[in-house]
Amino acid sequence: MSGWLKIAGLGPGDDGLITPEVTQALAQASDVIGYIPYVRRIAPRAGLTLHATDNRVELERARHALDLTAQGRQVVVVSSGDPGVFAMASAVFEAVEHGPQGWRDLDISVLPGITAMLAAAARAGAPLGHDFCVINLSDNLKPWALIEKRLRLAAEADFAMAFYNPRSKARPEGFARTLDILRATCGPDRVILFARAVSSGDESLRVTTLEKATPEMADMRTMVIVGSSLTRMIERKGAPLVYTPRSVPA
Amino acid sequence: MSGWLKIAGLGPGDDGLITPEVTQALAQASDVIGYIPYVRRIAPRAGLTLHATDNRVELERARHALDLTAQGRQVVVVSSGDPGVFAMASAVFEAVEHGPQGWRDLDISVLPGITAMLAAAARAGAPLGHDFCVINLSDNLKPWALIEKRLRLAAEADFAMAFYNPRSKARPEGFARTLDILRATCGPDRVILFARAVSSGDESLRVTTLEKATPEMADMRTMVIVGSSLTRMIERKGAPLVYTPRSVPA
Repeated sequence: MSGWLKIAGLGPGDDGLITPEVTQALAQASDVIGYIPYVRRIAPRAGLTLHATDNRVELERARHALDLTAQGRQVVVVSSGDPGVFAMASAVFEAVEHGPQGWRDLDISVLPGITAMLAAAARAGAPLGHDFCVINLSDNLKPWALIEKRLRLAAEADFAMAFYNPRSKARPEGFARTLDILRATCGPDRVILFARAVSSGDESLRVTTLEKATPEMADMRTMVIVGSSLTRMIERKGAPLVYTPRSVPA
Repeated sequence: MSGWLKIAGLGPGDDGLITPEVTQALAQASDVIGYIPYVRRIAPRAGLTLHATDNRVELERARHALDLTAQGRQVVVVSSGDPGVFAMASAVFEAVEHGPQGWRDLDISVLPGITAMLAAAARAGAPLGHDFCVINLSDNLKPWALIEKRLRLAAEADFAMAFYNPRSKARPEGFARTLDILRATCGPDRVILFARAVSSGDESLRVTTLEKATPEMADMRTMVIVGSSLTRMIERKGAPLVYTPRSVPA
Protein backbone atom coordinates (compact mmCIF):
# COMPACT_ATOMS: atom_id res chain seq x y z
CA MET A 1 0.00 0.00 0.00
CA SER A 2 1.43 3.37 -0.90
CA GLY A 3 1.68 6.22 1.54
CA TRP A 4 -0.83 8.97 2.03
CA LEU A 5 -1.23 11.92 4.32
CA LYS A 6 -4.58 13.27 5.43
CA ILE A 7 -4.70 16.46 7.46
CA ALA A 8 -7.92 16.06 9.39
CA GLY A 9 -10.10 18.30 11.53
CA LEU A 10 -11.57 16.76 14.67
CA GLY A 11 -14.01 19.63 15.23
CA PRO A 12 -14.32 21.53 18.51
CA GLY A 13 -14.54 18.60 20.92
CA ASP A 14 -17.76 16.58 20.70
CA ASP A 15 -17.41 13.36 18.69
CA GLY A 16 -20.83 14.13 17.15
CA LEU A 17 -19.08 16.89 15.23
CA ILE A 18 -16.45 14.67 13.59
CA THR A 19 -17.31 14.00 9.95
CA PRO A 20 -17.59 10.39 8.72
CA GLU A 21 -14.80 11.18 6.25
CA VAL A 22 -12.42 11.88 9.14
CA THR A 23 -13.61 8.84 11.10
CA GLN A 24 -12.91 6.65 8.08
CA ALA A 25 -9.43 8.11 7.59
CA LEU A 26 -8.61 7.43 11.25
CA ALA A 27 -9.80 3.84 10.84
CA GLN A 28 -7.44 3.33 7.88
CA ALA A 29 -4.41 5.11 9.32
CA SER A 30 -1.17 3.46 10.35
CA ASP A 31 -0.01 6.63 12.14
CA VAL A 32 -1.77 9.54 13.82
CA ILE A 33 0.25 12.63 14.59
CA GLY A 34 -0.69 15.76 16.49
CA TYR A 35 -0.66 17.96 19.52
CA ILE A 36 -1.07 15.93 22.73
CA PRO A 37 -4.72 16.82 23.63
CA TYR A 38 -5.92 16.08 20.08
CA VAL A 39 -4.12 12.74 19.81
CA ARG A 40 -5.61 11.85 23.20
CA ARG A 41 -9.02 11.89 21.50
CA ILE A 42 -8.02 8.97 19.22
CA ALA A 43 -8.79 5.46 20.50
CA PRO A 44 -5.70 3.19 20.40
CA ARG A 45 -5.95 0.01 18.30
CA ALA A 46 -3.64 -2.68 16.94
CA GLY A 47 -1.71 -1.47 13.90
CA LEU A 48 -2.02 2.21 14.80
CA THR A 49 0.90 4.23 16.13
CA LEU A 50 0.01 7.44 17.96
CA HIS A 51 2.58 10.25 17.87
CA ALA A 52 1.68 12.99 20.34
CA THR A 53 3.88 16.07 20.44
CA ASP A 54 3.92 19.32 22.33
CA ASN A 55 2.56 22.67 21.21
CA ARG A 56 4.67 25.07 19.09
CA VAL A 57 6.49 22.33 17.18
CA GLU A 58 4.15 22.44 14.19
CA LEU A 59 6.86 22.40 11.53
CA GLU A 60 8.74 19.48 13.09
CA ARG A 61 5.47 17.59 13.39
CA ALA A 62 4.68 18.35 9.74
CA ARG A 63 8.08 17.10 8.57
CA HIS A 64 7.69 13.96 10.63
CA ALA A 65 4.31 13.31 8.99
CA LEU A 66 5.71 13.88 5.50
CA ASP A 67 8.67 11.63 6.23
CA LEU A 68 6.39 8.78 7.33
CA THR A 69 4.21 9.29 4.24
CA ALA A 70 7.26 9.13 1.97
CA GLN A 71 8.10 5.82 3.66
CA GLY A 72 4.72 4.46 2.56
CA ARG A 73 2.75 4.90 5.79
CA GLN A 74 -0.90 5.96 6.00
CA VAL A 75 -0.72 9.09 8.07
CA VAL A 76 -3.38 11.30 9.63
CA VAL A 77 -2.33 14.63 11.11
CA VAL A 78 -5.04 15.69 13.54
CA SER A 79 -6.04 19.27 14.32
CA SER A 80 -8.91 20.49 16.38
CA GLY A 81 -11.59 22.37 14.47
CA ASP A 82 -10.77 22.69 10.79
CA PRO A 83 -7.16 21.96 9.82
CA GLY A 84 -7.12 24.89 7.38
CA VAL A 85 -8.06 27.59 9.92
CA PHE A 86 -5.14 28.50 12.21
CA ALA A 87 -4.18 24.86 12.41
CA MET A 88 -1.87 22.20 10.95
CA ALA A 89 -2.58 22.40 7.20
CA SER A 90 -0.51 25.53 6.62
CA ALA A 91 2.38 24.06 8.58
CA VAL A 92 2.34 20.92 6.43
CA PHE A 93 2.34 22.87 3.17
CA GLU A 94 5.10 25.13 4.45
CA ALA A 95 7.16 22.00 5.14
CA VAL A 96 6.33 20.70 1.65
CA GLU A 97 7.43 23.93 -0.03
CA HIS A 98 10.77 24.00 1.75
CA GLY A 99 11.32 20.23 1.85
CA PRO A 100 12.65 17.63 -0.63
CA GLN A 101 11.19 17.87 -4.15
CA GLY A 102 9.63 14.41 -3.81
CA TRP A 103 7.31 15.61 -1.05
CA ARG A 104 5.36 17.69 -3.61
CA ASP A 105 4.05 14.57 -5.30
CA LEU A 106 2.96 12.74 -2.19
CA ASP A 107 -0.73 11.95 -1.85
CA ILE A 108 -1.75 14.73 0.54
CA SER A 109 -5.30 15.81 1.26
CA VAL A 110 -7.07 18.04 3.74
CA LEU A 111 -10.25 16.78 5.41
CA PRO A 112 -12.29 19.75 6.61
CA GLY A 113 -13.83 19.97 10.06
CA ILE A 114 -16.14 22.14 12.13
CA THR A 115 -13.98 25.10 13.05
CA ALA A 116 -14.44 26.75 16.46
CA MET A 117 -16.05 29.93 15.16
CA LEU A 118 -18.88 28.02 13.47
CA ALA A 119 -19.54 25.94 16.58
CA ALA A 120 -19.47 29.08 18.73
CA ALA A 121 -21.71 31.01 16.33
CA ALA A 122 -24.19 28.12 16.29
CA ARG A 123 -24.48 28.17 20.07
CA ALA A 124 -25.31 31.88 20.08
CA GLY A 125 -27.65 31.92 17.08
CA ALA A 126 -26.26 33.26 13.80
CA PRO A 127 -23.86 36.14 14.53
CA LEU A 128 -21.83 35.27 11.39
CA GLY A 129 -24.92 35.26 9.15
CA HIS A 130 -23.56 38.06 6.98
CA ASP A 131 -20.11 39.21 5.80
CA PHE A 132 -17.44 38.70 8.44
CA CYS A 133 -13.72 38.44 9.07
CA VAL A 134 -11.59 36.05 11.05
CA ILE A 135 -8.50 37.20 12.95
CA ASN A 136 -6.02 35.31 15.10
CA LEU A 137 -5.26 37.71 17.96
CA SER A 138 -2.01 35.99 18.90
CA ASP A 139 1.06 38.01 18.00
CA ASN A 140 3.40 35.03 18.33
CA LEU A 141 3.72 34.79 14.54
CA LYS A 142 2.87 38.29 13.33
CA PRO A 143 3.46 41.88 14.42
CA TRP A 144 0.90 43.37 16.79
CA ALA A 145 0.69 46.44 14.55
CA LEU A 146 -0.83 44.29 11.79
CA ILE A 147 -3.49 43.01 14.18
CA GLU A 148 -4.42 46.59 15.10
CA LYS A 149 -4.54 47.61 11.46
CA ARG A 150 -6.82 44.71 10.62
CA LEU A 151 -9.12 45.47 13.55
CA ARG A 152 -9.52 49.09 12.48
CA LEU A 153 -10.16 48.23 8.83
CA ALA A 154 -12.57 45.45 9.77
CA ALA A 155 -14.52 47.90 11.93
CA GLU A 156 -14.57 50.42 9.07
CA ALA A 157 -15.84 47.68 6.73
CA ASP A 158 -18.54 46.86 9.31
CA PHE A 159 -17.66 43.17 9.25
CA ALA A 160 -18.76 40.90 12.05
CA MET A 161 -15.50 39.53 13.51
CA ALA A 162 -14.43 36.17 14.87
CA PHE A 163 -11.28 36.06 17.00
CA TYR A 164 -9.16 32.97 17.57
CA ASN A 165 -6.60 32.82 20.40
CA PRO A 166 -7.86 36.03 21.98
CA ARG A 167 -5.82 35.95 25.15
CA SER A 168 -3.07 33.98 26.82
CA LYS A 169 -1.40 34.31 30.20
CA ALA A 170 1.81 35.26 28.41
CA ARG A 171 0.23 38.27 26.66
CA PRO A 172 -2.91 39.42 28.48
CA GLU A 173 -2.56 43.04 27.31
CA GLY A 174 -3.36 42.34 23.64
CA PHE A 175 -6.99 41.51 24.23
CA ALA A 176 -7.47 44.53 26.54
CA ARG A 177 -6.08 46.66 23.71
CA THR A 178 -8.40 44.92 21.23
CA LEU A 179 -11.43 45.81 23.34
CA ASP A 180 -10.26 49.44 23.54
CA ILE A 181 -9.91 49.66 19.76
CA LEU A 182 -13.29 48.05 19.19
CA ARG A 183 -15.05 50.34 21.68
CA ALA A 184 -13.51 53.36 19.96
CA THR A 185 -14.42 52.20 16.44
CA CYS A 186 -17.68 50.29 16.94
CA GLY A 187 -19.20 52.08 19.94
CA PRO A 188 -20.21 50.75 23.36
CA ASP A 189 -23.47 49.04 22.35
CA ARG A 190 -21.97 46.60 19.86
CA VAL A 191 -22.74 42.95 20.62
CA ILE A 192 -19.83 40.74 21.70
CA LEU A 193 -19.99 37.13 22.75
CA PHE A 194 -17.58 34.80 24.49
CA ALA A 195 -18.02 31.11 23.77
CA ARG A 196 -15.69 28.93 25.81
CA ALA A 197 -14.88 25.27 25.17
CA VAL A 198 -17.92 24.84 22.91
CA SER A 199 -19.18 21.25 22.67
CA SER A 200 -16.99 20.09 25.56
CA GLY A 201 -18.19 19.31 29.08
CA ASP A 202 -17.33 22.73 30.51
CA GLU A 203 -18.86 24.82 27.75
CA SER A 204 -20.02 28.33 28.56
CA LEU A 205 -21.52 31.20 26.57
CA ARG A 206 -21.72 34.86 27.57
CA VAL A 207 -23.44 37.48 25.44
CA THR A 208 -22.86 41.14 26.27
CA THR A 209 -21.86 44.50 24.76
CA LEU A 210 -18.46 46.08 24.22
CA GLU A 211 -19.22 48.49 27.06
CA LYS A 212 -19.63 45.67 29.54
CA ALA A 213 -16.96 43.35 28.13
CA THR A 214 -13.77 42.85 30.16
CA PRO A 215 -10.51 41.19 29.12
CA GLU A 216 -10.99 38.48 31.76
CA MET A 217 -14.01 37.13 29.88
CA ALA A 218 -11.64 35.45 27.40
CA ASP A 219 -8.86 32.90 27.62
CA MET A 220 -7.15 30.68 25.05
CA ARG A 221 -10.12 28.29 24.98
CA THR A 222 -12.56 31.10 24.16
CA MET A 223 -13.86 32.12 20.75
CA VAL A 224 -14.82 35.77 20.71
CA ILE A 225 -17.33 37.04 18.16
CA VAL A 226 -18.18 40.71 17.67
CA GLY A 227 -21.27 41.64 15.70
CA SER A 228 -21.56 44.10 12.84
CA SER A 229 -23.53 47.32 13.36
CA LEU A 230 -26.67 45.39 12.34
CA THR A 231 -26.27 42.39 14.66
CA ARG A 232 -29.32 41.90 16.87
CA MET A 233 -29.85 40.48 20.35
CA ILE A 234 -33.21 38.80 20.94
CA GLU A 235 -34.03 38.80 24.63
CA ARG A 236 -35.73 35.73 26.05
CA LYS A 237 -35.46 33.38 29.02
CA GLY A 238 -31.81 32.33 29.30
CA ALA A 239 -29.04 33.74 27.09
CA PRO A 240 -30.29 36.07 24.38
CA LEU A 241 -30.19 34.89 20.77
CA VAL A 242 -27.72 36.77 18.59
CA TYR A 243 -28.00 37.03 14.83
CA THR A 244 -26.82 39.19 11.98
CA PRO A 245 -29.60 39.80 9.44
CA ARG A 246 -29.22 38.68 5.85
CA SER A 247 -30.11 42.12 4.51
CA VAL A 248 -28.41 45.48 4.65
CA PRO A 249 -30.80 48.37 3.91
CA ALA A 250 -29.73 50.68 1.09
CA MET B 1 -43.08 14.87 22.99
CA SER B 2 -42.52 18.62 22.91
CA GLY B 3 -41.48 20.48 19.83
CA TRP B 4 -37.99 21.38 18.83
CA LEU B 5 -36.33 23.05 15.88
CA LYS B 6 -32.83 22.23 14.71
CA ILE B 7 -31.28 24.30 11.94
CA ALA B 8 -28.83 21.88 10.40
CA GLY B 9 -25.98 22.11 7.92
CA LEU B 10 -25.68 19.30 5.36
CA GLY B 11 -22.18 20.32 4.28
CA PRO B 12 -21.20 20.92 0.65
CA GLY B 13 -22.63 17.76 -0.92
CA ASP B 14 -20.84 14.55 0.04
CA ASP B 15 -22.60 12.55 2.76
CA GLY B 16 -19.16 11.87 4.27
CA LEU B 17 -19.15 15.53 5.31
CA ILE B 18 -22.43 15.41 7.28
CA THR B 19 -21.77 15.35 11.02
CA PRO B 20 -23.22 12.53 13.15
CA GLU B 21 -25.07 15.20 15.14
CA VAL B 22 -27.00 16.23 12.02
CA THR B 23 -27.60 12.62 10.97
CA GLN B 24 -29.09 11.91 14.40
CA ALA B 25 -31.34 14.99 14.26
CA LEU B 26 -32.64 13.90 10.86
CA ALA B 27 -33.36 10.41 12.25
CA GLN B 28 -35.45 11.93 15.07
CA ALA B 29 -37.30 14.55 13.02
CA SER B 30 -40.99 14.52 12.22
CA ASP B 31 -40.55 17.27 9.61
CA VAL B 32 -37.70 18.39 7.37
CA ILE B 33 -37.97 21.77 5.70
CA GLY B 34 -35.73 23.40 3.13
CA TYR B 35 -34.88 24.47 -0.37
CA ILE B 36 -35.74 21.76 -2.92
CA PRO B 37 -32.22 20.48 -3.75
CA TYR B 38 -31.31 20.16 -0.06
CA VAL B 39 -34.49 18.36 0.93
CA ARG B 40 -33.88 16.01 -2.00
CA ARG B 41 -30.78 14.77 -0.14
CA ILE B 42 -32.94 13.43 2.74
CA ALA B 43 -34.13 9.81 2.46
CA PRO B 44 -37.90 9.51 2.93
CA ARG B 45 -39.12 7.28 5.76
CA ALA B 46 -42.35 6.53 7.60
CA GLY B 47 -43.23 9.26 10.10
CA LEU B 48 -41.18 11.93 8.33
CA THR B 49 -42.81 14.72 6.32
CA LEU B 50 -40.57 16.47 3.79
CA HIS B 51 -41.39 20.11 3.00
CA ALA B 52 -39.42 21.30 -0.04
CA THR B 53 -39.80 24.92 -1.06
CA ASP B 54 -38.35 27.16 -3.73
CA ASN B 55 -35.44 29.55 -3.39
CA ARG B 56 -35.91 33.11 -2.10
CA VAL B 57 -38.72 32.24 0.31
CA GLU B 58 -36.45 31.92 3.32
CA LEU B 59 -38.62 33.91 5.72
CA GLU B 60 -41.80 32.04 4.82
CA ARG B 61 -39.94 28.76 5.25
CA ALA B 62 -38.60 29.93 8.62
CA ARG B 63 -42.11 30.89 9.83
CA HIS B 64 -43.47 27.57 8.68
CA ALA B 65 -40.76 25.75 10.66
CA LEU B 66 -41.43 27.83 13.79
CA ASP B 67 -45.17 27.23 13.43
CA LEU B 68 -44.70 23.47 13.26
CA THR B 69 -42.33 23.59 16.25
CA ALA B 70 -44.89 25.55 18.28
CA GLN B 71 -47.38 22.79 17.42
CA GLY B 72 -45.05 20.28 19.09
CA ARG B 73 -43.37 18.83 15.99
CA GLN B 74 -39.68 17.84 15.78
CA VAL B 75 -38.44 20.00 12.95
CA VAL B 76 -35.14 20.11 11.08
CA VAL B 77 -34.50 23.03 8.72
CA VAL B 78 -31.80 21.94 6.29
CA SER B 79 -29.21 24.21 4.70
CA SER B 80 -26.25 23.27 2.58
CA GLY B 81 -22.87 23.99 4.13
CA ASP B 82 -23.17 25.59 7.56
CA PRO B 83 -26.58 27.04 8.43
CA GLY B 84 -25.00 30.11 10.02
CA VAL B 85 -23.01 31.24 6.96
CA PHE B 86 -25.26 32.86 4.33
CA ALA B 87 -27.91 30.25 5.00
CA MET B 88 -31.12 29.58 6.93
CA ALA B 89 -30.14 30.34 10.55
CA SER B 90 -30.34 34.13 10.17
CA ALA B 91 -33.72 33.83 8.45
CA VAL B 92 -35.10 31.74 11.31
CA PHE B 93 -33.91 34.20 13.97
CA GLU B 94 -35.24 37.12 11.95
CA ALA B 95 -38.63 35.36 11.95
CA VAL B 96 -38.32 34.77 15.71
CA GLU B 97 -37.54 38.42 16.43
CA HIS B 98 -40.53 39.69 14.47
CA GLY B 99 -42.89 36.81 15.29
CA PRO B 100 -45.14 35.94 18.25
CA GLN B 101 -43.53 36.32 21.70
CA GLY B 102 -43.95 32.58 22.34
CA TRP B 103 -41.50 31.72 19.54
CA ARG B 104 -38.62 33.13 21.62
CA ASP B 105 -38.92 30.33 24.15
CA LEU B 106 -39.09 27.47 21.68
CA ASP B 107 -36.31 24.89 21.80
CA ILE B 108 -34.21 26.09 18.85
CA SER B 109 -30.66 25.03 18.13
CA VAL B 110 -28.19 25.38 15.29
CA LEU B 111 -26.17 22.33 14.21
CA PRO B 112 -23.01 23.48 12.45
CA GLY B 113 -21.82 22.02 9.15
CA ILE B 114 -18.87 22.13 6.78
CA THR B 115 -19.34 25.43 4.98
CA ALA B 116 -18.36 25.70 1.31
CA MET B 117 -15.29 27.88 1.87
CA LEU B 118 -13.69 25.33 4.18
CA ALA B 119 -14.36 22.47 1.76
CA ALA B 120 -13.00 24.56 -1.13
CA ALA B 121 -9.95 25.66 0.84
CA ALA B 122 -9.23 22.04 1.80
CA ARG B 123 -9.21 20.98 -1.85
CA ALA B 124 -6.66 23.65 -2.74
CA GLY B 125 -4.41 23.30 0.32
CA ALA B 126 -4.72 25.92 3.05
CA PRO B 127 -5.42 29.30 1.44
CA LEU B 128 -7.38 30.40 4.55
CA GLY B 129 -4.57 29.42 6.91
CA HIS B 130 -4.19 32.97 8.21
CA ASP B 131 -6.53 35.94 8.81
CA PHE B 132 -9.28 36.18 6.21
CA CYS B 133 -12.67 37.66 5.42
CA VAL B 134 -15.84 36.23 3.97
CA ILE B 135 -18.07 38.22 1.64
CA ASN B 136 -21.30 37.34 -0.13
CA LEU B 137 -20.97 38.98 -3.56
CA SER B 138 -24.69 38.93 -4.25
CA ASP B 139 -26.29 42.36 -4.11
CA ASN B 140 -29.79 40.96 -3.83
CA LEU B 141 -29.96 41.89 -0.15
CA LYS B 142 -27.40 44.67 0.19
CA PRO B 143 -26.20 47.68 -1.81
CA TRP B 144 -23.41 47.03 -4.29
CA ALA B 145 -21.55 50.06 -2.91
CA LEU B 146 -21.11 48.22 0.40
CA ILE B 147 -19.59 45.22 -1.38
CA GLU B 148 -17.08 47.49 -3.12
CA LYS B 149 -16.22 49.22 0.14
CA ARG B 150 -15.62 45.90 1.87
CA LEU B 151 -13.46 44.62 -1.01
CA ARG B 152 -11.24 47.71 -0.86
CA LEU B 153 -10.87 47.60 2.91
CA ALA B 154 -10.22 43.85 2.87
CA ALA B 155 -7.47 44.38 0.30
CA GLU B 156 -5.98 47.17 2.43
CA ALA B 157 -6.07 44.87 5.48
CA ASP B 158 -4.33 42.18 3.38
CA PHE B 159 -6.92 39.58 4.32
CA ALA B 160 -7.29 36.44 2.25
CA MET B 161 -10.88 36.54 0.98
CA ALA B 162 -13.58 33.93 0.44
CA PHE B 163 -16.50 34.86 -1.81
CA TYR B 164 -19.92 33.20 -1.71
CA ASN B 165 -22.39 33.63 -4.59
CA PRO B 166 -19.81 35.27 -6.83
CA ARG B 167 -21.84 35.42 -10.02
CA SER B 168 -25.31 34.72 -11.33
CA LYS B 169 -26.81 34.97 -14.79
CA ALA B 170 -28.99 37.82 -13.53
CA ARG B 171 -26.01 39.97 -12.49
CA PRO B 172 -22.84 38.88 -14.31
CA GLU B 173 -21.27 42.36 -14.14
CA GLY B 174 -20.71 42.33 -10.36
CA PHE B 175 -18.00 39.70 -10.47
CA ALA B 176 -16.25 41.36 -13.42
CA ARG B 177 -16.19 44.55 -11.34
CA THR B 178 -14.89 42.58 -8.33
CA LEU B 179 -11.96 41.28 -10.38
CA ASP B 180 -11.19 44.82 -11.58
CA ILE B 181 -11.13 46.14 -8.01
CA LEU B 182 -8.95 43.26 -6.82
CA ARG B 183 -6.47 43.67 -9.68
CA ALA B 184 -6.19 47.38 -8.90
CA THR B 185 -5.74 46.85 -5.15
CA CYS B 186 -3.89 43.53 -4.92
CA GLY B 187 -1.90 43.50 -8.17
CA PRO B 188 -1.90 41.01 -11.05
CA ASP B 189 0.13 38.23 -9.41
CA ARG B 190 -2.21 37.59 -6.49
CA VAL B 191 -3.41 33.98 -6.24
CA ILE B 192 -7.10 33.32 -6.94
CA LEU B 193 -8.84 29.98 -7.02
CA PHE B 194 -12.18 28.79 -8.28
CA ALA B 195 -13.60 25.69 -6.60
CA ARG B 196 -16.82 24.53 -8.20
CA ALA B 197 -19.32 22.06 -6.71
CA VAL B 198 -16.75 20.76 -4.21
CA SER B 199 -17.44 17.22 -2.97
CA SER B 200 -20.11 16.62 -5.63
CA GLY B 201 -19.69 14.47 -8.74
CA ASP B 202 -18.83 17.38 -11.03
CA GLU B 203 -16.27 19.04 -8.78
CA SER B 204 -13.57 21.17 -10.38
CA LEU B 205 -10.71 23.32 -9.10
CA ARG B 206 -8.80 25.99 -10.96
CA VAL B 207 -5.85 27.87 -9.45
CA THR B 208 -4.59 30.98 -11.23
CA THR B 209 -3.68 34.64 -10.70
CA LEU B 210 -5.80 37.79 -10.82
CA GLU B 211 -4.14 38.68 -14.11
CA LYS B 212 -5.38 35.49 -15.76
CA ALA B 213 -8.74 35.26 -14.01
CA THR B 214 -11.87 35.91 -16.05
CA PRO B 215 -15.46 36.43 -14.85
CA GLU B 216 -16.56 33.26 -16.67
CA MET B 217 -14.48 31.12 -14.31
CA ALA B 218 -17.22 31.54 -11.66
CA ASP B 219 -20.89 30.75 -11.43
CA MET B 220 -23.31 30.40 -8.49
CA ARG B 221 -21.92 26.97 -7.62
CA THR B 222 -18.36 28.29 -7.36
CA MET B 223 -16.48 29.36 -4.24
CA VAL B 224 -13.84 31.93 -5.06
CA ILE B 225 -10.87 32.37 -2.75
CA VAL B 226 -8.28 35.13 -3.15
CA GLY B 227 -5.01 34.87 -1.28
CA SER B 228 -3.34 37.50 0.88
CA SER B 229 -0.07 39.06 -0.30
CA LEU B 230 1.76 36.16 1.40
CA THR B 231 -0.23 33.28 -0.11
CA ARG B 232 2.00 30.80 -1.90
CA MET B 233 1.52 28.46 -4.86
CA ILE B 234 3.55 25.25 -4.76
CA GLU B 235 4.00 23.91 -8.28
CA ARG B 236 3.84 20.15 -8.75
CA LYS B 237 2.26 17.58 -11.06
CA GLY B 238 -1.45 18.48 -11.29
CA ALA B 239 -3.00 21.58 -9.73
CA PRO B 240 -0.56 23.58 -7.59
CA LEU B 241 -0.99 23.55 -3.83
CA VAL B 242 -2.05 26.89 -2.37
CA TYR B 243 -1.42 27.92 1.20
CA THR B 244 -1.16 31.02 3.34
CA PRO B 245 1.72 30.82 5.80
CA ARG B 246 1.08 30.99 9.55
CA SER B 247 3.65 33.74 10.02
CA VAL B 248 3.84 37.34 8.90
CA PRO B 249 7.41 38.72 9.04
CA ALA B 250 7.82 41.88 11.11
